[in-house]
Amino acid sequence: MKTETKDALREETLDPDDWESVRTLGHRMIDDVLDYMKTVRERPVWQPIPEQIRAHFKKPLPHDPQDPEQVYEEFVQKVLPYNMGNIHPRFWAWAMGTGNVMGAFAKLLAASMNTNSGGNENSDSSFHVEKQVIDWIKDMLGFPASASGLLTSGCSAANLIGLTVARNTKAGYDLRKKGLQAVSRKMMLYASQEIHSSIQKAVEILGLGSDALHLVPVNDYFQINITKLKNAIRKDRENGCLPFCVVGAAGTINTGGIDDLNALADVCQSENLWFHVDGACGAWAALAPHAKSKVVGMERADSLALDLHKWMYMPFEIGCILAQNEEYHRKAFTLTSDYLVHGQDKRGITGGSSPWLSDYGFQLTRGFRALKAWMSIKEHGSRKYGRLIQQNINQAHYLSELIKSQPELQLSAPVTLNVVCFRYVGSSMDDASLDELNKQIVIELQEQGNVVISGTTIKGRYVLRAGIMNHRSRIDDFDFLIREVTRVGKDLASSARKT
Amino acid sequence: MKTETKDALREETLDPDDWESVRTLGHRMIDDVLDYMKTVRERPVWQPIPEQIRAHFKKPLPHDPQDPEQVYEEFVQKVLPYNMGNIHPRFWAWAMGTGNVMGAFAKLLAASMNTNSGGNENSDSSFHVEKQVIDWIKDMLGFPASASGLLTSGCSAANLIGLTVARNTKAGYDLRKKGLQAVSRKMMLYASQEIHSSIQKAVEILGLGSDALHLVPVNDYFQINITKLKNAIRKDRENGCLPFCVVGAAGTINTGGIDDLNALADVCQSENLWFHVDGACGAWAALAPHAKSKVVGMERADSLALDLHKWMYMPFEIGCILAQNEEYHRKAFTLTSDYLVHGQDKRGITGGSSPWLSDYGFQLTRGFRALKAWMSIKEHGSRKYGRLIQQNINQAHYLSELIKSQPELQLSAPVTLNVVCFRYVGSSMDDASLDELNKQIVIELQEQGNVVISGTTIKGRYVLRAGIMNHRSRIDDFDFLIREVTRVGKDLASSARKT
Repeated sequence: MKTETKDALREETLDPDDWESVRTLGHRMIDDVLDYMKTVRERPVWQPIPEQIRAHFKKPLPHDPQDPEQVYEEFVQKVLPYNMGNIHPRFWAWAMGTGNVMGAFAKLLAASMNTNSGGNENSDSSFHVEKQVIDWIKDMLGFPASASGLLTSGCSAANLIGLTVARNTKAGYDLRKKGLQAVSRKMMLYASQEIHSSIQKAVEILGLGSDALHLVPVNDYFQINITKLKNAIRKDRENGCLPFCVVGAAGTINTGGIDDLNALADVCQSENLWFHVDGACGAWAALAPHAKSKVVGMERADSLALDLHKWMYMPFEIGCILAQNEEYHRKAFTLTSDYLVHGQDKRGITGGSSPWLSDYGFQLTRGFRALKAWMSIKEHGSRKYGRLIQQNINQAHYLSELIKSQPELQLSAPVTLNVVCFRYVGSSMDDASLDELNKQIVIELQEQGNVVISGTTIKGRYVLRAGIMNHRSRIDDFDFLIREVTRVGKDLASSARKT
Repeated sequence: MKTETKDALREETLDPDDWESVRTLGHRMIDDVLDYMKTVRERPVWQPIPEQIRAHFKKPLPHDPQDPEQVYEEFVQKVLPYNMGNIHPRFWAWAMGTGNVMGAFAKLLAASMNTNSGGNENSDSSFHVEKQVIDWIKDMLGFPASASGLLTSGCSAANLIGLTVARNTKAGYDLRKKGLQAVSRKMMLYASQEIHSSIQKAVEILGLGSDALHLVPVNDYFQINITKLKNAIRKDRENGCLPFCVVGAAGTINTGGIDDLNALADVCQSENLWFHVDGACGAWAALAPHAKSKVVGMERADSLALDLHKWMYMPFEIGCILAQNEEYHRKAFTLTSDYLVHGQDKRGITGGSSPWLSDYGFQLTRGFRALKAWMSIKEHGSRKYGRLIQQNINQAHYLSELIKSQPELQLSAPVTLNVVCFRYVGSSMDDASLDELNKQIVIELQEQGNVVISGTTIKGRYVLRAGIMNHRSRIDDFDFLIREVTRVGKDLASSARKT
């Protein structure tokens, strides 16, 4: 290609030609999203996506420009109405937070700055904001000031980071350099049968293989059986394996069960194992005045993975990994290229003497996700978060009492935190037919759009499941849920009898 | 804990008490961020963070609430001014995009919806938006419609996913289940010495160990030496290793060098190896009318990792992984829990028969990052992106001509794409002193705040580096850069002589 001369360059930009019309559009968006959040209760929780909407997204790559107003209008018509629904007060499926207004605003601000949060103390303010948010999280969850931390895309990434540190620290040789194939003793880790699938995913990515994840049975409270855990470790050692880690659950996804974390910490201490805790679903119980005792022992974890986009109600994506030992954490990930040599002379963008945020994980470029946490925690204060988390736990207990009072319903697991598992049994069917009936209840409720719960399998039976991580839910919403479940259950049972 | 009665629940929410005052705040934010982006050229590219600002972020956890307006004011005073600077027209350090207005708006919209993009065709509109964006990316980069894809937090995550698929597919046994310790032949992969550090990070996380990454020397154009690559593969096989993958670079970070991708594809074909391409820095050259021939062969990759927050100028975080074989991709990650059984009866939120987006990576919860790509590509159209990418390449060539015309400056590497490496040599110093002088030029320019470039090491010498991924840069900005580099270089050389 011949070198272009200066005159030949007709330069363009993505910046607007007309800033004022874009400003008008921005103001319209603010009005629209605030109306959208304010009136969310008046709309269906979820609605099926019509075929013509699905077809709309098959259109080919646009080569030519389109007016920003038109693009936005298309969003309003085709995208906005078909939400999964987790921002709605009557959404309690799976484990997802609600989001909040300041969090959404913060994402606008962060994207406008578009600073790269992979840097060091000199680079930019986002480093300091993230460090402060991490300090606050450590404070709230009982970790020492010396612990390290990193905000992540969520708890899957946090679990992956935590287990990487565990594996590398406990291997007993330079695993980063030599790899897993250099060791003949099979590295093993332990968790209960109720542990989240992201642990298995991490174990597979790490090259350990799912065979390395020894799943231990649970007791009636869905807690890992400590005796069986100890036996498993002993037997694996006898068989020449190398046990290196126990993963505790601070809130399982299925039932909200919490392992005996102090007992696990003791086992790890005496067996010299890494203690990792998956706190995606329940770590924040530590803020709830009447529930914090349930997660005692969590602060003894070598690494703790958690989410802020679940039970801290922040918009996606924001999770966090904490590690008791900063050096172990950093040494599992730090890697400095020629073009990113960490400065020693204190000056310039790269001159900070601190480790970089990218030294604690696998992302080098990182968005400014800390801002939404920083602004939200400042706006509301930690005590209010504690009350809201307690409120969800209270709502779960209220719901479980309602269920107990209904002859057609049966509680399927003890309510430890914010998860309520139950089953419609108001029909003299066999268990398999009741499984099918309960599945249909979930789908029917979703399609009617008034309330969304999910289902899961407990002890071989399909059950209904409400996981409450929602700052918009009101006590009446749970009365409504029970009315709807019994109404729909009755209807389905009656039509099943007719066919 | 005793069950709360309905009356005893004093329920709270994170929603505003006063929606109107929050609306006013939102409008102020829109005005502020648009002014901020519109006037970015008038501010310093970067400025050091004063000690009192750093100290501000040491304050303890706030327990009590603070007015939203105050929180925002604190952001405006303490956070906003200290940006890394990559949104500025004269920022060309490392490899970071500029961001764009519609992208920032889209993040507000996505966070307000707060839908979870981990689902299936039934779940919500974000599934369809992401699928369409992936289709467009495949179209733009020459991948077939049958290829799979996933948007990621960036190219580090995309490389990690791509190499996971490579490792699992090529191991020749069920590596997900049995792990790497089940195979005795050491799995090996190959890349040039110029490959990005995220490849090493991925290799380490995957348990392969950095010893498994065989780094092959480059030629004068910083391309992998194909003969040496073939020899390395042959020798490793002779030594009982299991070569499984070659990683090609479509744009190295240091110099923008592009491996001979067709030659690498041929090697992989004849040697039965997985062909992964790291396209973080250069994949989008495929859109540039006069540069697309340079990345020919990229479309033959088994997996291609790329970024949209670099050379597509979108706000952080958005990268992408494409895989030629959808089944290999999915089989490396799909994992379905009891509570997320993929529906077969087509109804309800989980009822879509398609694989879920979470089946293609390690995140289960996923933010709606597709929206900023969808809205930005619609607003501008693919042709404009092609012109802008070509514009940056042309600017790089213009800059290299300027450098050649200056006796004090020396070009340090051929300009392939958008990266210009050069060195101030206008002083009769030895090479080590010139290294130091050039380091000081980078820092001095950063601190003066008029232009930001970075440095790197090429053939053992420290050089200045401008990587142009900036839709706001104008040709005059490069004239300015050269004036500043020569001025600051002269000043520093002269004060070095005096001491």
